[in-house]
Amino acid sequence: MGHRDFNEIHHRVEVQIPPTKPFSHTLKSSLKETFFPDDPFKQFKNQSLSRKFLLGFQYFVPILEWAPRYTFEFFKADFIAGITIASLAVPQGISYAGLASLPPVIGLYSSFVPPLIYAMLGSSRDLAVGTVAVPSLLITSMVGKEINPYENTKLYVQLVLTATFFAGVFQASLGLLRLGFIVDFLSHATIVGFMGGAATVVCLQQLKGILGLVHFTHAADLVSVMKSIFGQIHMWRWESGVVGCCFLFFLLITRYFSKRKPVFFWINALAPLTSVILGSVLVYFTHAEKHGIEIIGHLKKGLNPPSVSELASTFGSTHLMMAIKTGIITGVIALAEGIAVGRSFSVFKSYHIDGNKEMIAIGMMNIAGSCTSCYLTTGPFSRTAVNFNAGCKTAVSNIVMATAVMITLLFLTPLFFYTPLVVLSAIIMAAMISVVDYEGAIHLWAVDKFDFVVCISAFIGVVFSSVETGLVIAVVISLLRILLFVARPKTSVMGGLPNSKTYRSIEQYPKANSVPGVLILHINAPVYFANAGYLRERISRWIDEEEDKLKSSAKNDLEYVILDMSSVGSIDTSGISMLEEVKKNVERRCIKLVLANPGGEVMKKLDKSKFIDTIGHEWIYLTVGEAVNACTFMLQTCTPKTKTLEPDHAADDKV
Amino acid sequence: MGHRDFNEIHHRVEVQIPPTKPFSHTLKSSLKETFFPDDPFKQFKNQSLSRKFLLGFQYFVPILEWAPRYTFEFFKADFIAGITIASLAVPQGISYAGLASLPPVIGLYSSFVPPLIYAMLGSSRDLAVGTVAVPSLLITSMVGKEINPYENTKLYVQLVLTATFFAGVFQASLGLLRLGFIVDFLSHATIVGFMGGAATVVCLQQLKGILGLVHFTHAADLVSVMKSIFGQIHMWRWESGVVGCCFLFFLLITRYFSKRKPVFFWINALAPLTSVILGSVLVYFTHAEKHGIEIIGHLKKGLNPPSVSELASTFGSTHLMMAIKTGIITGVIALAEGIAVGRSFSVFKSYHIDGNKEMIAIGMMNIAGSCTSCYLTTGPFSRTAVNFNAGCKTAVSNIVMATAVMITLLFLTPLFFYTPLVVLSAIIMAAMISVVDYEGAIHLWAVDKFDFVVCISAFIGVVFSSVETGLVIAVVISLLRILLFVARPKTSVMGGLPNSKTYRSIEQYPKANSVPGVLILHINAPVYFANAGYLRERISRWIDEEEDKLKSSAKNDLEYVILDMSSVGSIDTSGISMLEEVKKNVERRCIKLVLANPGGEVMKKLDKSKFIDTIGHEWIYLTVGEAVNACTFMLQTCTPKTKTLEPDHAADDKV
Repeated sequence: MGHRDFNEIHHRVEVQIPPTKPFSHTLKSSLKETFFPDDPFKQFKNQSLSRKFLLGFQYFVPILEWAPRYTFEFFKADFIAGITIASLAVPQGISYAGLASLPPVIGLYSSFVPPLIYAMLGSSRDLAVGTVAVPSLLITSMVGKEINPYENTKLYVQLVLTATFFAGVFQASLGLLRLGFIVDFLSHATIVGFMGGAATVVCLQQLKGILGLVHFTHAADLVSVMKSIFGQIHMWRWESGVVGCCFLFFLLITRYFSKRKPVFFWINALAPLTSVILGSVLVYFTHAEKHGIEIIGHLKKGLNPPSVSELASTFGSTHLMMAIKTGIITGVIALAEGIAVGRSFSVFKSYHIDGNKEMIAIGMMNIAGSCTSCYLTTGPFSRTAVNFNAGCKTAVSNIVMATAVMITLLFLTPLFFYTPLVVLSAIIMAAMISVVDYEGAIHLWAVDKFDFVVCISAFIGVVFSSVETGLVIAVVISLLRILLFVARPKTSVMGGLPNSKTYRSIEQYPKANSVPGVLILHINAPVYFANAGYLRERISRWIDEEEDKLKSSAKNDLEYVILDMSSVGSIDTSGISMLEEVKKNVERRCIKLVLANPGGEVMKKLDKSKFIDTIGHEWIYLTVGEAVNACTFMLQTCTPKTKTLEPDHAADDKV
Repeated sequence: MGHRDFNEIHHRVEVQIPPTKPFSHTLKSSLKETFFPDDPFKQFKNQSLSRKFLLGFQYFVPILEWAPRYTFEFFKADFIAGITIASLAVPQGISYAGLASLPPVIGLYSSFVPPLIYAMLGSSRDLAVGTVAVPSLLITSMVGKEINPYENTKLYVQLVLTATFFAGVFQASLGLLRLGFIVDFLSHATIVGFMGGAATVVCLQQLKGILGLVHFTHAADLVSVMKSIFGQIHMWRWESGVVGCCFLFFLLITRYFSKRKPVFFWINALAPLTSVILGSVLVYFTHAEKHGIEIIGHLKKGLNPPSVSELASTFGSTHLMMAIKTGIITGVIALAEGIAVGRSFSVFKSYHIDGNKEMIAIGMMNIAGSCTSCYLTTGPFSRTAVNFNAGCKTAVSNIVMATAVMITLLFLTPLFFYTPLVVLSAIIMAAMISVVDYEGAIHLWAVDKFDFVVCISAFIGVVFSSVETGLVIAVVISLLRILLFVARPKTSVMGGLPNSKTYRSIEQYPKANSVPGVLILHINAPVYFANAGYLRERISRWIDEEEDKLKSSAKNDLEYVILDMSSVGSIDTSGISMLEEVKKNVERRCIKLVLANPGGEVMKKLDKSKFIDTIGHEWIYLTVGEAVNACTFMLQTCTPKTKTLEPDHAADDKV
């Protein structure tokens, strides 16, 4: 036949079926790619046993790796950075503890033990450890639903510590089980929307402090908060409002200046501490606490008391399940923020962060924290950015911060007696306003509408319902997008580029010319059960359209359909059945099916399912160009009758 | 620079950014592809209003389209086929009604009204309508959990009819809302495993009838059924067992013969009716009903009574939610079977089946059925296969079957008085054994291990837990596979094929040669948030490995990394950030990033996010070959120092 002639004339490279490997080998390598994509065992190869042990220990305790090379130069930089973040840590710690409805001193405790643990185990050089707003808020809304934090403070604190413990256990297990990739499913768009929504809610809740309200809703959605605020207009305290607005203005103006001139980053970094000092001095001299401005009051002096017994006491309680649930949800969110932040800054300085190792470090630090009266900590964006700007070199800056907080706890707590709550609210508000990344949302709209939808859904979910709802909606929409990509793959007609042997989509390259008598279709996704039905319909629609076009222009009949499989990364049995059906269908219309460039994975499966024998190995070409050449050669040399087709059931059974 | 020179020497085609379309246009076209992939409005174009109306009516009532062309020849064929399937329908209807714990006569009713409706609305020419085993079993286990079918028969029947009504409403709505593609998510592998598991459970349950047991579990899992059987060994009736085994053997042997010689298909088709007649005659003459063989007993004479009032009576009941749930689950399963069967046979005869239209037809037939005392029907595989083999030409065979069943209902029901239940059990068992597609499972193992896992999970889930569990597990695993494909895309190193300008994966084409100083990477999936992190790690690992290899062989440094984007069907904002990070990372290592052949979708987004400006449009090539040529040209003409790189923060801040 003419086809054979063509193959003899054009000495062509056959499309290869990759050598079959034993199943165990394939399974092993795909498990490795799934769970160990970063190849952590590489460094252990060809090492002595003792060296392997040392390396393994260093793997889990990175400080052992870099501490020997630590210099005084580094320490100077780390010291400055550490003092700077400590000045931020004290007021933020107190404020966020308030957000979590915890006694303020727990916020300070949380900036002492966890940073020390992280400094030993963490692999980031820039991450500054501390408590974060969104999980703090979540703790209030989840634990506070069962236990009133103001009426039953002891149990509430116990349960929060238990939740922190389970958050730590969950985080560390994710790392140990190599499931770090779960965090990847929180896409950038989800995080932007989610953080924006949470920040909005936190901001609104601060109106409680700013307006000096005493009774306030525990719900975290926009509607309840607004109702709570406007339902008690007569309770608003103007003194509190004026002080709050002044400090908020001060904090925002310092941020604005720091942003314009990065050298003045320290203005922004010191602004919270300055506000606290100013506010306290103001209250002390004016006795404003008697005129409607609430103050922190007595703070317990001394270091973190151990809390293992507190943890143990909740293990039999009926609230344990709730504590575990809170721990898992807040743990995941805190982890996502910590890892995303660590990763962003590691890119600036070009070093590598191991997600699973970070998970273990963050998890261990929360387990240790929960045993020493600390609640959930991670690497907050604001504090880490300050740390980075202050020129930190290693995690030693965390140790410096912890030391500074320790000194505060031991000697300086009485100084915070007169600190007005309204200043803390202003600090939180100012921090939250910068988290609302509206520019990011606009960028998403410009680049990718679907990402924008994900972002806005997360935002709306968080603002109008709850943090969990927002998160679940955003993740589900993100996953639906992937499924939709697979379920409705893009197919496009290809044509030859002028003066070139390259074939490309006519949609992208309007100058590409179609080949008479040949339809070239490009399939742009793996062929799976989810799209097999669609692809069958779509391919037959492309053929219908092409035939209609040919009929109306009275050109040659359509005789070949080339499927460009370059982008078909994988195929399953439903996909193979689909190809078989397509082949039957086109042959019944006296059209020959030709495949171009199937990948290794696809060739293997087509071979095993005997589809290659059905279609004929000689009808599978290495490139679209070769396939087109063969088809046009056949069209020129053969009359239509000599085509090697058997329209077997060219059925007359049409009604 | 040398790069410009190269572009001037080689007059090259630029990678095009497709023309931007207004957002509304893109949205419209993607919604159309998602919900109207079969383009049902095509035929309405350029038609007059009255013609449009007629076409629209014909669209929903296909019989109007083909009835005018119906001939006597067709009728002869349809008549024979109709009588054949009626002979199967009567015993099967009675048996499956037993499986659903319904009075036997309801099984007969269900073979009268629904086929008439389907004949008018359905678009398949081969589908034979009837009740099916798995949904029948599901009805017993779901409705039977709340209402005992033997103690409270009236309410049970009412609820089953209500469930059927909602199944129909749900099916029709899926079709009207163009959500037919949901059925696609039940992959071939899922269906094989699920049907096999369900058939196994149904078979085991028939041991009740075969062994003549009176008390039996309502649970449908293997463990409960086996416990129920072996817990009452002393209750086994040998008479019943012997008769049952004889008939089972007879049915299996006829199937075996029919399979070997397709001309004898009618032996198999008539075997159930023969068994029923033989069994009844046997019981009549031997009075076996007094020796432990149960019989059907009195069957009500007369056509389907209307049941709208029965439906209405349940609408306020506390069981309504359960009925709706049962309706939706059984409706989906029945739909999946009906459409899969219709589609398979349409492929044989090369005509087109519209999934959404079929959904409406099946839904309407169940709504009508539920108002006329029929329970859930669809297109069972066994009956449709018999119909096809008997040579049916159109849906008229369904009308013939319905007429035959009508005659049975009007005049012949007393004949079934003596029909032994054990024969019905044997008929179900024989039918179910053929549904267990172990060859299909072996094929799945050979071709696609993952599909096999899906299949086996569905099987195990159904057999050891429940039908719903099995289905949910299988669907979740199938979806995880898609997510895993995207989350862990295959990347491979490419090389040039000898004597060719084509570049292909070295893994698939071991003869392909790598290009010195250039690393070519192929990415095999869309770049989404779910894989952005992985790809960043994987790409840097490929570069590490390549550099190690070059170092050990003392060859040139790696200077270019070409990313072949041909298979990257889509990208989101996380993916673009990943590319930006990769670019920064490789530039810090003094390597230049080059892109080859990004598709239209990807180019658009890279353009909008300014990544094209960052990388430079001249560093994006149409083909891998061109990119390699440019890189090698640069390597030969320029010293490494003249590369256009700005290692901006080539940081000395490494500890």
